[in-house]
Amino acid sequence: MSIRRSALGRRYAIIGTGALGGFYGGRLARAGCDVHFLLHSDYEHVREHGLRVDSVDGDFVLPSVHACGRAEDMPRCDVVAVTLKTTANHLLGELLPPVIADDGVVLVLQNGLGIEERVAEIVGADRVMGGLCFLCASKVGPGHIRHLDYGYITLAEYDSQARPRGITERMRAIGGDFKSAGIRIQYAEDLVLARWKKLIWNVPFNGLSVVLNTTTDRIMANEHSRALAEGLMREVAAAARAAAERKIEESFIRSQLDDTARMAPYSPSMLLDCRAGRPMEIEAIFGAALGAAATAKCPVPRIETLYRLLKFMDEGNRRGTTF
Amino acid sequence: MSIRRSALGRRYAIIGTGALGGFYGGRLARAGCDVHFLLHSDYEHVREHGLRVDSVDGDFVLPSVHACGRAEDMPRCDVVAVTLKTTANHLLGELLPPVIADDGVVLVLQNGLGIEERVAEIVGADRVMGGLCFLCASKVGPGHIRHLDYGYITLAEYDSQARPRGITERMRAIGGDFKSAGIRIQYAEDLVLARWKKLIWNVPFNGLSVVLNTTTDRIMANEHSRALAEGLMREVAAAARAAAERKIEESFIRSQLDDTARMAPYSPSMLLDCRAGRPMEIEAIFGAALGAAATAKCPVPRIETLYRLLKFMDEGNRRGTTF
Repeated sequence: MSIRRSALGRRYAIIGTGALGGFYGGRLARAGCDVHFLLHSDYEHVREHGLRVDSVDGDFVLPSVHACGRAEDMPRCDVVAVTLKTTANHLLGELLPPVIADDGVVLVLQNGLGIEERVAEIVGADRVMGGLCFLCASKVGPGHIRHLDYGYITLAEYDSQARPRGITERMRAIGGDFKSAGIRIQYAEDLVLARWKKLIWNVPFNGLSVVLNTTTDRIMANEHSRALAEGLMREVAAAARAAAERKIEESFIRSQLDDTARMAPYSPSMLLDCRAGRPMEIEAIFGAALGAAATAKCPVPRIETLYRLLKFMDEGNRRGTTF
Repeated sequence: MSIRRSALGRRYAIIGTGALGGFYGGRLARAGCDVHFLLHSDYEHVREHGLRVDSVDGDFVLPSVHACGRAEDMPRCDVVAVTLKTTANHLLGELLPPVIADDGVVLVLQNGLGIEERVAEIVGADRVMGGLCFLCASKVGPGHIRHLDYGYITLAEYDSQARPRGITERMRAIGGDFKSAGIRIQYAEDLVLARWKKLIWNVPFNGLSVVLNTTTDRIMANEHSRALAEGLMREVAAAARAAAERKIEESFIRSQLDDTARMAPYSPSMLLDCRAGRPMEIEAIFGAALGAAATAKCPVPRIETLYRLLKFMDEGNRRGTTF
């Protein structure tokens, strides 16, 4: 990726224009970046009407955006942001090669573990970066995103040997584009640690919110669900240590619990998916953590229990039965 | 208890006339035993209309039964069958002393661990017997029981030192009364082992049926919930060994799984309670097992997870909120 290009010169692809892709892509486009959106079900609507973002930071409408229905129709892009649901990641092998510029970078903005590895197999390890999004948003209609809270992204370089790669010039260049679009950016030296730290929150709160059909505030308000959240966090930390040799401090776990208790009632994305009858991102978040722990022979019975409960529910959800 | 009395001479008290008490008490009364029913909400109805049992073994109506609204109004009984829900067991200290004959015996027909211990504190260890009911029945209206399947009881003597007490004459006498009422009876030498073996089934299938809002057949048909059931059974077996020095063979676990897979779709009592918004018997089944395991320092993270999920749900259930 050419880091010499100005923000306005770097071309972005948004692979998957749901809540996350619509929000970040919309903000970049509004700031003047050259952004090309890949759409599936909303293609016709967005081509005609553009994007609409209702946001706590201020509503905006983009009456006309570069909407594409097929990856082959997109121009080569400097930054290819993967904003699909992970349940569609089997499509990446088709979607990425036509879109990425020779010196471009794929920015994986999804949740979970192990996705950069798969992207690296497709585009090469030097063209992969990870981005951890802390965003509360949902798609409420075709091309219509509602942004409720948060929005910052932590960027980190991928390394095929799982080493910390530090903060690179291209991270700062991409981060600068997002900053110019009003998105708060943090830079992390170690993608692996950042991914495991995100799991510390995602495993308990995505999982328990679905199994208990409830929001974060109620999980934190009940002594039993709060204890479950804490126990799950400890297992994630143990797995990070055993599987990735990353140490997550007890103080980080405490601050995650305290922050969640102070947060406004929040419906994690997996709960929204479950309630809407959509497939849940179980494998990327839970399956990948379980697999890593199993390889390292680290017992994580609480995560495994939650994973299996979710798998049962997901199957019922997809068959359209109630549970 | 006088074992010389004939079946027709032994007087029975049924403490709690729900599905279980109504079914067994009704069968004993129909067979000619002298049975006195303690009732609460259904007292007026049963005093006027008697009991009605719709049963796979044949329907019957008892137009007139000995219905009592208060324990103080009951005669002293030779066999006092405790058929309350365990969530009402705090009442036993009031209910048992006025009813039990000097040489009578309290027959605990409830699920869970540790109940005989509490009854022994009230009436003395020599006057306690356990009965494990394998019954699928529910109360469908005032004094109206529906018996769907099964019905046999395993009897075992209580011992204050948790030793096997063998098969006693009074067990055979009480067992004979039930047999004369058409109830299949087994005699167990070791109440502690029998109680833990029952938990092997109750923990996974009561718990998972509630958390997944589903029946036993669907739990067994899905690879993930089936694996959870198996993992939970192994933890119960580990706890039995650590906490009670009872060995439950792997072959027993396998046969419980196989039998459940072959069974007709079944809604465990805890699922029926949950769906009806009634309190669930979480403490007697899960809390007691957890407590025993904790005392023995035996880790049971899967049981603990299920317990805490159920406690959250039970609280929501009792507050009348949906979940």
